[in-house]
Parts: sequence; C-alpha cells; structure tokens
Amino acid sequence: MKLPEGFQLAGGSCGIKGSGKPDLGLIYSATPLNWALAATQNRLKAPCVTRNQARYGSSQSVHGIVVNSGNANCANGERGIWDNEDFAAIAVNALGLSSVQVILTASTGVIGQKLEVDKLRQALPLVARDLSNDSSNFAEAILTTDTRTKQIAANLSSGARIVGIAKGSGMIHPNMATMLAFIMTDAVIPQENLRTIWPGMVERSFNQVTVDGDSSPNDMAMVFSSQQVPTNEAEFIEALEVICQNLAQKIARDGEGASKLITVNITGAKNRQEARAAARAVVRSPLVKAAAHGNDPNWGRILVAVGATIASVDLANLEIRIQNVTVYKGIPQDFDAQELSAKMAGSELLIEIDLAAGPAVGTAWGCDLSEDYVHINADYHT
Amino acid sequence: MKLPEGFQLAGGSCGIKGSGKPDLGLIYSATPLNWALAATQNRLKAPCVTRNQARYGSSQSVHGIVVNSGNANCANGERGIWDNEDFAAIAVNALGLSSVQVILTASTGVIGQKLEVDKLRQALPLVARDLSNDSSNFAEAILTTDTRTKQIAANLSSGARIVGIAKGSGMIHPNMATMLAFIMTDAVIPQENLRTIWPGMVERSFNQVTVDGDSSPNDMAMVFSSQQVPTNEAEFIEALEVICQNLAQKIARDGEGASKLITVNITGAKNRQEARAAARAVVRSPLVKAAAHGNDPNWGRILVAVGATIASVDLANLEIRIQNVTVYKGIPQDFDAQELSAKMAGSELLIEIDLAAGPAVGTAWGCDLSEDYVHINADYHT
Repeated sequence: MKLPEGFQLAGGSCGIKGSGKPDLGLIYSATPLNWALAATQNRLKAPCVTRNQARYGSSQSVHGIVVNSGNANCANGERGIWDNEDFAAIAVNALGLSSVQVILTASTGVIGQKLEVDKLRQALPLVARDLSNDSSNFAEAILTTDTRTKQIAANLSSGARIVGIAKGSGMIHPNMATMLAFIMTDAVIPQENLRTIWPGMVERSFNQVTVDGDSSPNDMAMVFSSQQVPTNEAEFIEALEVICQNLAQKIARDGEGASKLITVNITGAKNRQEARAAARAVVRSPLVKAAAHGNDPNWGRILVAVGATIASVDLANLEIRIQNVTVYKGIPQDFDAQELSAKMAGSELLIEIDLAAGPAVGTAWGCDLSEDYVHINADYHT
Repeated sequence: MKLPEGFQLAGGSCGIKGSGKPDLGLIYSATPLNWALAATQNRLKAPCVTRNQARYGSSQSVHGIVVNSGNANCANGERGIWDNEDFAAIAVNALGLSSVQVILTASTGVIGQKLEVDKLRQALPLVARDLSNDSSNFAEAILTTDTRTKQIAANLSSGARIVGIAKGSGMIHPNMATMLAFIMTDAVIPQENLRTIWPGMVERSFNQVTVDGDSSPNDMAMVFSSQQVPTNEAEFIEALEVICQNLAQKIARDGEGASKLITVNITGAKNRQEARAAARAVVRSPLVKAAAHGNDPNWGRILVAVGATIASVDLANLEIRIQNVTVYKGIPQDFDAQELSAKMAGSELLIEIDLAAGPAVGTAWGCDLSEDYVHINADYHT
C-alpha cells in the first residue's frame, strides 16, 4: 500500500521468531512527526509503553517507531527496561539519527522472555536499508497469531492520504500478542489537535473491540503526521474515524479461531458510556459468542448479557434484532428460528439492541467463539 | 443423603424436559421455616426471583420451595409472572396448605419459552406423594447441563445437621441453566441472624465462582432452618461456610466442558474486596483457562489478568506460584516447564498470587476452557 508523503517503512526478519517469519518493522520519517498515543490501561505495562509515554511530554523530535514481534519484552524487571532502551538506540544508529532524535518502540509476543538484543543489533541496519514508500513488509513483520495483515488507506480531497496498519488477535482479552495500530498521514494537523482528537477516536474504535481495561500490557494505538499537505481538519477527522473503525473490524474479524465478525449496535441508551458498555458486554459474552458460532438465534443470552451491565434499560420496551429480524420486544417475538439460523451462517453477524432508555448509541465489534480458539490458546506458549 | 429433621424432599418428571429426565423438585417442611435469600444482581430477573424477594419482607410462614428445570420462565412478560404465581399455588394445593402459607419458587432452563403450567399441575400432586427424608431425587430433578448432582452434608456436635444441594454450570457467566443452591438445617437459628450471616457467606463462596454481576436472571442461593436442634451459632456458621465453599467448588468442577477445578488464592491484597476481585479476574480469564486446559504454566497471562483489575499490586515483589512452584517473583523465575506442565495435568490446579500490597486474602474457583464448552454452548438452545 502506498504511504503518505514523508513516510518510509520496512520489515524483515531478525530471528526472534523461531519460524524465521518477519519479526522486525520500522516506520521512519526524515522530518519530525506530530504524534499522539493511546496506551494500555493494564497496571502491568511493558517498557516500550512506559518509554513512549515518557516521550509524550518531551519536546524532542520523533522520527518513527521500531517494532518487534515474537517477544513482548514485558515483565522482565529492570533488564527489560534497559533492553528496550538498547532497542531504540540501535534504531537511532541504524537510521543515522543523532541521540536527541527519538525513535519510539513497540514489542509484541510472549511475556517474560529476555529480548534478544544482539539479533536486533545485527538485523536493524539491514532492515533500515529496505525502507520504501510501501507498507506491506512492515504490516507483515508486526503480526503474531494474526492470519493476515491489516491495512487500509483513504485519500482526502486536499490530496493528503491516511494509511492505517494494525495487528491483533482481537479476542475477549487481547492475547499477549497485543493490539497495535499505527496510523500515518501527511495531512497538516497541529500536534495539540491530534492529541485532542485521539483519545475519543480510540474509544469509539479499538477500545470497542476489547473488554475495557482488560488490555494487554503492550497495547498501543498511535497516529503520526508528517505535516506535508494542508487539509480541512473536519474532513481529516471523519476519514480518520473510518480508518480506525475499519481496522478495529479487521482485528475482530481475524480473532483467534474466528469464523465471523460480530457487530453489536446499541440504540436508545441513556448516554454514550452506557451504550458502549452494553455493546461490549454483548460482544464479549462467551455464551453469545458460542451461540454465534453455532448460528443459534439465542436472544436470551443477549438479553442476559445486557442485563448484567450498568446500562439503564426499559425491559418492557427493549428490542433485540438479529440480522434485521426482531426476536424480542418486551416479550418474545414469533420468528422462524431455522430461517434466521440460515441468515446467521455468513461471515458477518449484526445484533441490534434498542434499550428504550434514552437517545445514545454505541457499537462494538467481536467474533464468534470456536473450538479453534481453545486449540490456539492451549498451545501458544509452550 | 439423609436430610435434617423436619425436611422432606421429592423429585420427579413432569415432561417439561423433552428428554423425560427429572425436572420437578420439592422441598417441604410441615412447620414454618426460617430462611435467607441471596439473588441475582442481573437487571433482568425471572418472576420466581422477584416473587421470592417480595416474600422476604412478609410475615407469612414459608414451608418450602418448588423447583422446575428445563424452562427458566424468564423474559416472558406479564404472562410469566402469572404462570409463576400459578406454579406456587399448585404446590400449595398439592401440599394441602392454606393460601396464607407460602411455597417459594425457582425455575431454571431456557429463557423466553412459556412455562407449561398444565404439566406442572398434573405432576405436582404425584411428586408431592413421594416426599421423603432423602435428598437424591430432588438433587437430580434440578439439574440442566450439569453432569452430576451436587450434595454435601455436615453434622454438628449438637446433633444438628446441614445438607446443601446445588446445581449450575459454573462457567464464566452462569448459563441460562442458572446457579441454584439450597441449604437446609435443623439447627435453631433466629431468622434475623440467618439473614445477617447469609450475604457474606454467599460473597465468599457462590459469588467467587462466577463473574461479579454477570449472574443469570434466575440465580438464587437460599438457606432454610426447621428450628429443631439448639446449636452453638459459631459452630453452625463455620460448618455452613464449609458447605457453601464445597458446593461452589463442585459447581466449578462441573463447569461445562471442564476437565479440572482451578483454585486461585490471592494473598497480600490491600483489602478483601481487591483480593476477591483479583482472584475472580484470574479464574475467569479465557486465556488463563485455555492455558490450564493445555497444562501450560503460562504465568504471563495470570500476571496480565491481575494487572487489568482494580487490585493494588507491588509489581517488584508480586509472586506467582503454580502447583506450589514459584514461576514469577518480581522477575521471571527459573523452573522446569515440562515438569510443571506434568504437575498441572491432574483434575485440580492451584494458582497462588501474592500481590505484596497488603494483608488481605481471597479465593475464587473456576475451571479450564475446553473445546467441549464451545460444543455445548453452540448447540444448547436450538
């Protein structure tokens, strides 16, 4: 995928993954980037997360990020902190930058294993030599249990471009495999504005794939701007939201063992917080997910999942629709279960719930729960 | 199992379960019972729950409870409320009681299907004729997806006896199948004291099997006393706690598709609330559960699950032990993964976590996540 002006990406293999698959990626801009970061809420945070957060308040110029997959460099004590500093310094050297110029870091993979810094030191100069304006190798290099790359682009009327790249297993709790998202644009947008926009954008997209708070210690979503093309900010924001929600859906759809994308739309909530909480509760319910896997229009499980949240509901008027069929409205509705089950058999499942308690709406994305999820997660580590 | 003095139980089939398996149970005492109730926190509550709660403040004498399995009589609108009233009235008639004497109700099974009151009306007089001082038929009649009955008894030095009977699938969210627990004793204990004791007792036992708040609309745990044998109250409370925790473990062990009981002990928590929340978070984590299924000593997932909770932790001193082997203490510990994996292969798994943040302790019980869980829950309804 062609990148916005000013960005160069690369991806290659350094040998951290025993498989020999790509495991080292680089995003680089010769000119300083404006950037914004949203990071994990987990109390356990990997050194890459805390280091990037520490750089957030600094005035040093940021020129990109280096990413390894296969090892999360997390829960390694002080050694992990220094290994992460080395990782960044190796990238700065490989790119010929000065020590006051910043390269951010991200790591994803298994927790509690020492980062093999020597492998990174050997491979990074070679990977840096392959920097180009195509995103494919980078998108490949950051994957762990993902089955496919996740990329999306948009062109704005100003001629500016936005490219988003993500990885993540998108299951109930993100795997140690972590959710990472990198959005790049050449649209001119002040750093202050970027940082004002970003938290809400992440709330309405990436955070609606996972359970709130149950994020991996390495989760990060970042946006970078190379400041090349003057652009209408409202148009930029609109396109950015589409990009983020599309990536969120791609992550959900590629959930471990998943056979379908589940979209839960809540309407009639008291406020947006309750709407989002209710949507997440339904999409994370193992019983709803298993029913989705079996194409079972089991609205009782949906109702119970909503009932267990903080969301206000008017039970007498609450309505549930599955694939546009009303299955419950205050009382059970007559519907052809076999016909509806057939409609559920595709790769996308839409569940709509009107809480009948207010004006607010919210959406969450997830996937079905399959036997393969158990296989993958019973065997991933050892 | 022999019952405490004053109690008579029965169980039989009324045909609500298509399989012809037992689905109608009765607990009866000729003399009025002292009783206490803890019910679901779900906003959606079945009519049996709201009716029992309404009787809680009344001075009418309670003489037992009638239970059906196979149909939860939940989310059926007003019709469900009247069907539940009929259910209770039929039991009162079958037992030859007057209309001011109360029989409580409980239903468990599929949501949103009309309760077949005619079947109950036909079968209840026959079932009532079989009342005896043995618990087995009742324990059988209340099951849904359970693979075995759950009963336990204790004898007190006063000669009093406590018998507990429960049912439930005990998975992440209790299934529509619901968690029900009935504890009976002939120990003399004032109703006021029973009701003071009960909430804390349920907190430390049944509520530590399931995710807080994510309870089924029909969940109830009840204790009944026939007031026959003067007994030391402290001894009674101690035995009651053992009974409740044993039933909680039985529920977890019989979780849908489960091959092992997981016990999570938290020490070093700031307070008991945080200890219990952390224990529940670990035992409900799909990644921890899947790792347990694969006998994978994946302490990283345990650490991440703890980190996502509200619990205060001292990460530099936090310690994780799996089957008595220390795998993490501030930093990863050396251990023989293959040997530990072999130790995890039994039917019980012990995970101990010292948060190093205070004096409080807490325990939660759960089970592993298997392929069978998905099979059961993709096919249960249709």
